[in-house]
Amino acid sequence: MNTGTDDLENLITLLAKLPGLGPRSARRAVLHLIKKRSLQLIPLAEAMHRVGATARECLNCGNIGTTDICDICDSEKRAIGQICVVEDVADLWAMERSQVFKGRYHVLGGTLSALDAVGPEELRIPKLIDRIKSEDVTEVILALAATIDGQTTAHYIADQLPGITVTSLAQGVPVGGELDYLDDGTITAALNARRSI
Amino acid sequence: MNTGTDDLENLITLLAKLPGLGPRSARRAVLHLIKKRSLQLIPLAEAMHRVGATARECLNCGNIGTTDICDICDSEKRAIGQICVVEDVADLWAMERSQVFKGRYHVLGGTLSALDAVGPEELRIPKLIDRIKSEDVTEVILALAATIDGQTTAHYIADQLPGITVTSLAQGVPVGGELDYLDDGTITAALNARRSI
Repeated sequence: MNTGTDDLENLITLLAKLPGLGPRSARRAVLHLIKKRSLQLIPLAEAMHRVGATARECLNCGNIGTTDICDICDSEKRAIGQICVVEDVADLWAMERSQVFKGRYHVLGGTLSALDAVGPEELRIPKLIDRIKSEDVTEVILALAATIDGQTTAHYIADQLPGITVTSLAQGVPVGGELDYLDDGTITAALNARRSI
Repeated sequence: MNTGTDDLENLITLLAKLPGLGPRSARRAVLHLIKKRSLQLIPLAEAMHRVGATARECLNCGNIGTTDICDICDSEKRAIGQICVVEDVADLWAMERSQVFKGRYHVLGGTLSALDAVGPEELRIPKLIDRIKSEDVTEVILALAATIDGQTTAHYIADQLPGITVTSLAQGVPVGGELDYLDDGTITAALNARRSI
């Protein structure tokens, strides 16, 4: 990098490791931060310290929060008998942004994968089965990726939960999507799941 | 964002303000950092604290370092009588990466701009004139952008330095550049500055 000082080079190297950043954008970010030292650099350092000290996985669902049991699991309002199963915390956040799901979550931490030797014990599947016994669950909604691994995981989970209503997200044309740009699989799924209007 | 905890949302909001990052990549970065807490999150927070506490502009040239006079200005080896004038610190770093310039720098902090009401006093131009009187300067190399504002600034500086050799970077075809993709201006400049081989 050759910026002349070790502290700066160290900061650039660390920032460049973030997903979505490289050496060039890390250098730009560092210069930007130094120009806005009191408004951005110091608050950012403090926010990182705080998150580093407090962030932890919820013991119940696997969401990331600052307490042993996350806000969602802790809220009585969300105990509506629905558990939405997602692959990771980013998916949970995406669901929360849509503000459409009112129940609780369960973060698997990945998908089953024979190639990567990921079995049910590596994921949070046993914990899910425990929760369904202990919480008053009426429906498990599988919000997993429409990939081979995601669908394998969905089928495995459905097999483990006899007697429970297990649903999965609908497949079809995305809102705003143009048919011309959609792949064959999506069009097939959307046609098969067509409904009368 | 709705991640469920204020600390996390605060960190995401701050990260999303960095150039090159937005809310989506900031969320990805935060999840990545939490997974690599001891290897990346904590060191990054500490590196930011250190830079926030120590980074300052060199009183002589405007480079960013951790001392009042930067390493380059402080090095006797770089006192070869050449001063390279650049617009900002990012340009200085770019010059240093090429490792071809052995002299000292002068960071203007911007370019003259009538539209943005940036005059010579807003830049570090008076300080440059002082330096040329006090240091033993034989050549001033203007490494400014090939834009209207950059070239205006270059001409203004050249006018302020009678009796000093003032040069500017050559214009021409970039290394690896294909003629087909070059603009007319660059081809014109390269043709006018052609040389025998």
